[in-house]
Amino acid sequence: MKIQLINPNTCQGMTDKIALSAQSVCLYSSEIIARNPAHGPESIECALDETIAAAALLDVIAQGEAEGVDAHIIACFGDPAIDAARELASVPVIGIAGAAFQLASLVSHRFGVVTTMSRTLPAAEHLLHRYGYHHLCSGVRATDIAVLDLEQIQASAYQQLLQECRAAINQDGAEAIVLGCAGMSDLTAELSAALNVPVIDGVAAAVKLAESLHALKLTTSKSGNYAAPLHKSFHGRYQHWSR
Amino acid sequence: MKIQLINPNTCQGMTDKIALSAQSVCLYSSEIIARNPAHGPESIECALDETIAAAALLDVIAQGEAEGVDAHIIACFGDPAIDAARELASVPVIGIAGAAFQLASLVSHRFGVVTTMSRTLPAAEHLLHRYGYHHLCSGVRATDIAVLDLEQIQASAYQQLLQECRAAINQDGAEAIVLGCAGMSDLTAELSAALNVPVIDGVAAAVKLAESLHALKLTTSKSGNYAAPLHKSFHGRYQHWSR
Amino acid sequence: MKIQLINPNTCQGMTDKIALSAQSVCLYSSEIIARNPAHGPESIECALDETIAAAALLDVIAQGEAEGVDAHIIACFGDPAIDAARELASVPVIGIAGAAFQLASLVSHRFGVVTTMSRTLPAAEHLLHRYGYHHLCSGVRATDIAVLDLEQIQASAYQQLLQECRAAINQDGAEAIVLGCAGMSDLTAELSAALNVPVIDGVAAAVKLAESLHALKLTTSKSGNYAAPLHKSFHGRYQHWSR
Amino acid sequence: MKIQLINPNTCQGMTDKIALSAQSVCLYSSEIIARNPAHGPESIECALDETIAAAALLDVIAQGEAEGVDAHIIACFGDPAIDAARELASVPVIGIAGAAFQLASLVSHRFGVVTTMSRTLPAAEHLLHRYGYHHLCSGVRATDIAVLDLEQIQASAYQQLLQECRAAINQDGAEAIVLGCAGMSDLTAELSAALNVPVIDGVAAAVKLAESLHALKLTTSKSGNYAAPLHKSFHGRYQHWSR
Amino acid sequence: MKIQLINPNTCQGMTDKIALSAQSVCLYSSEIIARNPAHGPESIECALDETIAAAALLDVIAQGEAEGVDAHIIACFGDPAIDAARELASVPVIGIAGAAFQLASLVSHRFGVVTTMSRTLPAAEHLLHRYGYHHLCSGVRATDIAVLDLEQIQASAYQQLLQECRAAINQDGAEAIVLGCAGMSDLTAELSAALNVPVIDGVAAAVKLAESLHALKLTTSKSGNYAAPLHKSFHGRYQHWSR
Amino acid sequence: MKIQLINPNTCQGMTDKIALSAQSVCLYSSEIIARNPAHGPESIECALDETIAAAALLDVIAQGEAEGVDAHIIACFGDPAIDAARELASVPVIGIAGAAFQLASLVSHRFGVVTTMSRTLPAAEHLLHRYGYHHLCSGVRATDIAVLDLEQIQASAYQQLLQECRAAINQDGAEAIVLGCAGMSDLTAELSAALNVPVIDGVAAAVKLAESLHALKLTTSKSGNYAAPLHKSFHGRYQHWSR
Repeated sequence: MKIQLINPNTCQGMTDKIALSAQSVCLYSSEIIARNPAHGPESIECALDETIAAAALLDVIAQGEAEGVDAHIIACFGDPAIDAARELASVPVIGIAGAAFQLASLVSHRFGVVTTMSRTLPAAEHLLHRYGYHHLCSGVRATDIAVLDLEQIQASAYQQLLQECRAAINQDGAEAIVLGCAGMSDLTAELSAALNVPVIDGVAAAVKLAESLHALKLTTSKSGNYAAPLHKSFHGRYQHWSR
Repeated sequence: MKIQLINPNTCQGMTDKIALSAQSVCLYSSEIIARNPAHGPESIECALDETIAAAALLDVIAQGEAEGVDAHIIACFGDPAIDAARELASVPVIGIAGAAFQLASLVSHRFGVVTTMSRTLPAAEHLLHRYGYHHLCSGVRATDIAVLDLEQIQASAYQQLLQECRAAINQDGAEAIVLGCAGMSDLTAELSAALNVPVIDGVAAAVKLAESLHALKLTTSKSGNYAAPLHKSFHGRYQHWSR
Repeated sequence: MKIQLINPNTCQGMTDKIALSAQSVCLYSSEIIARNPAHGPESIECALDETIAAAALLDVIAQGEAEGVDAHIIACFGDPAIDAARELASVPVIGIAGAAFQLASLVSHRFGVVTTMSRTLPAAEHLLHRYGYHHLCSGVRATDIAVLDLEQIQASAYQQLLQECRAAINQDGAEAIVLGCAGMSDLTAELSAALNVPVIDGVAAAVKLAESLHALKLTTSKSGNYAAPLHKSFHGRYQHWSR
Repeated sequence: MKIQLINPNTCQGMTDKIALSAQSVCLYSSEIIARNPAHGPESIECALDETIAAAALLDVIAQGEAEGVDAHIIACFGDPAIDAARELASVPVIGIAGAAFQLASLVSHRFGVVTTMSRTLPAAEHLLHRYGYHHLCSGVRATDIAVLDLEQIQASAYQQLLQECRAAINQDGAEAIVLGCAGMSDLTAELSAALNVPVIDGVAAAVKLAESLHALKLTTSKSGNYAAPLHKSFHGRYQHWSR
Repeated sequence: MKIQLINPNTCQGMTDKIALSAQSVCLYSSEIIARNPAHGPESIECALDETIAAAALLDVIAQGEAEGVDAHIIACFGDPAIDAARELASVPVIGIAGAAFQLASLVSHRFGVVTTMSRTLPAAEHLLHRYGYHHLCSGVRATDIAVLDLEQIQASAYQQLLQECRAAINQDGAEAIVLGCAGMSDLTAELSAALNVPVIDGVAAAVKLAESLHALKLTTSKSGNYAAPLHKSFHGRYQHWSR
Repeated sequence: MKIQLINPNTCQGMTDKIALSAQSVCLYSSEIIARNPAHGPESIECALDETIAAAALLDVIAQGEAEGVDAHIIACFGDPAIDAARELASVPVIGIAGAAFQLASLVSHRFGVVTTMSRTLPAAEHLLHRYGYHHLCSGVRATDIAVLDLEQIQASAYQQLLQECRAAINQDGAEAIVLGCAGMSDLTAELSAALNVPVIDGVAAAVKLAESLHALKLTTSKSGNYAAPLHKSFHGRYQHWSR
């Protein structure tokens, strides 16, 4: 199957990194097509970034659909534009936050989330509510590491990340850790070894869920709220959306 | 005070209509600056429309900020991009759904919402939860009138709207009606006369709340989640957002 | 318009103080009629006080109705007797707690409440739930300043109030402060200057909401739960309620 | 033990009736002292009635305390003034709605409530939330029988009551019926025989709970929110509350 | 009446202890038949223990039914097997956790729970949600005293228990204490004297509720979810359940 | 990997059937070991059945652990004994209800559940709450087909099942269907073809999730509530659990 893995920001380094993470866990028969939009912010750390990136990533969804991919993954922990993407897509669309919460709940009674900037906490809280996992989460902690600083993570930042994971376990009662940023996916194994509890990377989780749905021939229901968008005119820089 | 009233779709007719609605209720000292984005969908009726319009309307927020307006109103019942807009703005940003819920709750024990297409129901439900008004709402009903058909509403569509309002009152127990689309604002008086319960138009409600905040010198808190967006590079068609 | 501003306790000093607060923010065309009941407790700080004051304030509502006022404001942070008042009134009835929560939610992502005695905390919590604002509140803090001590506030009490506001911001994550007692309304400007976040006084908020509803010709729905009370006999000291 | 059974309205007939109901189920060693306030409405069917009756019934609590009763029961399905009564009392105060919900939940998976006027539905809903029984209730149904019409119930009204009980069982899935008015207590046995499910009368339930607490030497905690009211001046017709 | 008091673990010492607790509070006319299953764990401290004990205790329910007891009490704070027991029984089945929450809520605004091992916290949390008392609970605290160590409690363990009760009151705001293990029932009076707030033992609470239901002729509804189990074959060591 | 697929009832026919369902979707490298307990009910349709089966299936978990399987699946829609199983297991334990809810939420906005007997509805509702999927479920519908009648399903029963699925879609707004019994797993393809929406079988879903966790080297956290059970004595027919 072809899995389109979308990094919704414009940082090529992060796109390359999550492609490696995905390839390291996917089936031999799966092909990972990693992309990021040509337009938008270089990282997503506040509501402005997310609102712009949401519009931009839909172009990538449309491109993947045109090419006949078998699933789309939105690889930003805010799961931006997931409803619009599901309207556009004929195949499953999976967000990495939702994917991580699902697998974390299968291996723990309570999981903690450790994320980047404090400004992203409301987005994580919102998704816990939307997906129904709030009561299974022991808390969300910010490291205040900037997303782009994960690209070449310094020892001090790694220590800060490790420390928040430990606080989640020892103070909040987390029995597993969900990594709250796609840019942390390359640190999963190291953190898991250090912490001795399951550490869940949403990118890897989403890849396995995409493969699972494909094996079961399950795809986005087009009956109801994820039916194809209504035909209408779009103007200006969004004219290409006119149908 | 200067109130920027933003119609997030590109339909000039609707922009003109809501400008009239706003002007008919604002203070003598208030100036209504009604605008719509140059980019985006001509109406907002599904998640794709809303995701694109959200990105597009932020340009109008920025324009209003540059001009020194005293408040922004987002005149689409999904309150799109409200968090990003509050990050960008130094003055209050009010969505018409939230504004309508607030005033409706002051004059009724339970209010009903009557909206356009069935596809917009999840957005209305989402906002009732976000703002905390779900338990005060007797139900959301769709008329399946397309947004643009409100521009020159036919007798049959008006009857359909009236019928759903009556069903909300008689079957659901609504004691007041919230109109679920900015494009219905010109029908408020007529519906109110026909129904004999309070009928709340979010555009008018938002204008009065904007004036209220201004009189009290209350503006968006820049301490916390609505602090100004972080400085970073944006690429492609969003390059103008680089700071 | 004529706004009847009701202090539900019998402390004339507080009635005078909130009249000034209301007059300083109302429109030129608004007339503030500030009153307190002849009967009841001199301050409201526990359930007994509130239960007695609730019955007593209804006489003031009836008086205002007889005089043809255009709105009633119940200026005690427990919003006592608000349902019964809405049954009695033909015009809007606004409680200061509900009014403050509404405006606070327009200018912040999370607001904190700072109130008087610890004994009043359950009442504030109850209203946050009733109105649906619990998830938008970062916490309610008591200063343990007695209501009547606000009449001539000492420097030490003011410092205690300021300290709890700061704790709400720095420890609880409040982005705005709601003042949890009508008797604090004269401190709004001073606290706002000191704290650098929006500070919301419910008395001022309620006045602007009353004017907003009046401008929009919105009044209490008499269809449903706020219909006029049923006619029946009352005995003893409540005989005057017989209809 | 001495149990003060308070009918919060001024209808002596109802006071006599619930006294009989209580006496028919209490222990040989229990003495039922049934009273109603001298002041207030002759029945409680809307928020105005309840707000006035709440203030009036506190005088009866004080009288019982002075006489050294061992428990107070508030025999109106809205459990009016229960918080203030618990502040005043040194012994347990039990409301009949809360008592009925407790016993109903011990003998059924879901119970239905059948009450008098539609106007009382919000009060019942409020108590289900306050006490935490909302998810165990299959629904609240009104018969629109006036409270005083229960005094000499006609065959037609009884049939209406029976019909709503049957609808609760057959349509809503109720496995037990809670009677939503103290004035229905004399119909418990007849309804139970007719319906073949447990029928719970709150008056009887409250008597047994009062005896239970007494046997276990459990009484209202005076540490925290039910501590004695603060000392202060009351004016006018409430001057007797000054402490 | 005959009350079958079931200790679901196989520790005879605990069975004897709770029999004494029950006998010390029951009516003269009540007979306490205290039993424990022949099969299962000697104490219940984790999900494995509870799952095994749940199956084992149903044999005791069946025995009591065959003997014609008038009520069953499940005397383990997890209220194990309560739904299955209610299916089997023609008379009421009461769990001690639910019973304790009910009486605690009648004498306090918020109660705390103090239990044994940390591993039992999720079970207590689950029951607070199931019964609807979560919002009335100030918190659940573990002492990490093993259940069997309560049999001959050491001074140090008692001090640990007392300390957690005090923390519940002073730090969490508990106004009453619910003892979270049947094995603590003999400590109720001593703790109550030391703490000066109501201390509720679920065993005693359940006995009084059983007597209350019996006096009111209320028994488990056999209409709906607690109807008798369907007839079918059971195999192996559960063959005796075949009907 | 070795996946132990446990049918918790003693019906060999159902064990064989779900083995086929699992084998038809698992990876080439996965081995399905399908088993049922030697003890317990031949089908699970009420709380008694489930309580007995829960204890019985733990023996199968222990057997699988001794043999070194890589995951356990509990193939009954009530996910019985899942917490105890996770304590016992060193590898993941997945229930088919939770698995089905997860995949259904990835391909629909709202899913419906169609199950067997009405008596099983509370179990399904309980799991929707436990796992946090209640707000994503449009409703649970019973067909009142007995579990064993699914073994050789008659045309009339199949039509009844189809009809309830259609009602879920057309009346409740379901966009996907979750099959509420392991015994329906062989009907998935046929129902999916007939209904034109995604149809999710929990057995298949659980197999893919087990493979996903295995690929990611994620296993049950032994830190916290799923730590190994405490060592203690068990008596009688459960003596083999003594550690």
